[in-house]
Amino acid sequence: MSVIDALVRSNEVYAKQHGDMLPPRPAKRLAVLTCMDARLDVYRLLGLAEGDAHVLRNAGATVTDDVIRSLAVSQRLLDTNEILAISHTDCGMRTFSDEEFRSDLERQTGHRPPWPSEEFRDPEADVRASIARIKDSPFVPHTEGVRGFVFDVGTGRLREVTV
Amino acid sequence: MSVIDALVRSNEVYAKQHGDMLPPRPAKRLAVLTCMDARLDVYRLLGLAEGDAHVLRNAGATVTDDVIRSLAVSQRLLDTNEILAISHTDCGMRTFSDEEFRSDLERQTGHRPPWPSEEFRDPEADVRASIARIKDSPFVPHTEGVRGFVFDVGTGRLREVTV
Repeated sequence: MSVIDALVRSNEVYAKQHGDMLPPRPAKRLAVLTCMDARLDVYRLLGLAEGDAHVLRNAGATVTDDVIRSLAVSQRLLDTNEILAISHTDCGMRTFSDEEFRSDLERQTGHRPPWPSEEFRDPEADVRASIARIKDSPFVPHTEGVRGFVFDVGTGRLREVTV
Repeated sequence: MSVIDALVRSNEVYAKQHGDMLPPRPAKRLAVLTCMDARLDVYRLLGLAEGDAHVLRNAGATVTDDVIRSLAVSQRLLDTNEILAISHTDCGMRTFSDEEFRSDLERQTGHRPPWPSEEFRDPEADVRASIARIKDSPFVPHTEGVRGFVFDVGTGRLREVTV
């Protein structure tokens, strides 16, 4: 059985104990931004239930235009007003420089990636940069409730980053 | 206690039963792309464990440049080779047109958003468009293993979309 077929079978078990339909507006009026890293089970590590919070994830938890677009939708149309930005230790993004990655891609594919160059430094600095970008955006109205944390993939523990 | 403080307290409970540190490469060699919608607890609804799969999430599960960047990192640097694209029913993104949203933002903030205009149609069409964009990208090497599903937020069940 393929990996995806096995997951679809797991979903049948999940659906059997699924509760009533919840509304689209997040109950905790929160958006969480974090990395795509496989070790971050966001709902479990924060104790979230279905319906509690929007969850945005990409490579590196980087605040790209797409993240700003998603936060704008989250706050302006679906009434969230707090943001939790979570970076993590041992991030795969820190094993290479972004410029190296883009140059490799161009050499291998013949196409120059259109993505902006990103610096990956340390998780605390990344969280501070993320918060600064969110606060700088004219499209995200509620930025006084933005807080940043680093998730330690070794211990499972969150540590707050002072801005 | 604020919402975020309560989540940090939940995390202390989570950390107490956290296991050994896992490697950054996803065990199931899979990347999951889905919407930021609060009702999708991706790990639970697919039966994933920590370490199994990259998870990418934005407003609408749209295949933006940022998603292509993340998939390129996932496949080229962290050895995934399958992609699961999940759209869902009752998506908040379908209550407005993207052009309306962008025009409202421009009127309210004085800034025109730089994001590309997106059409939101129905979940099946969105999944097909997502798969087509992934397959069209020169930066994502393994696209033969892309499959698309719609998650029903009423029943908790996944339904495969034929491409």
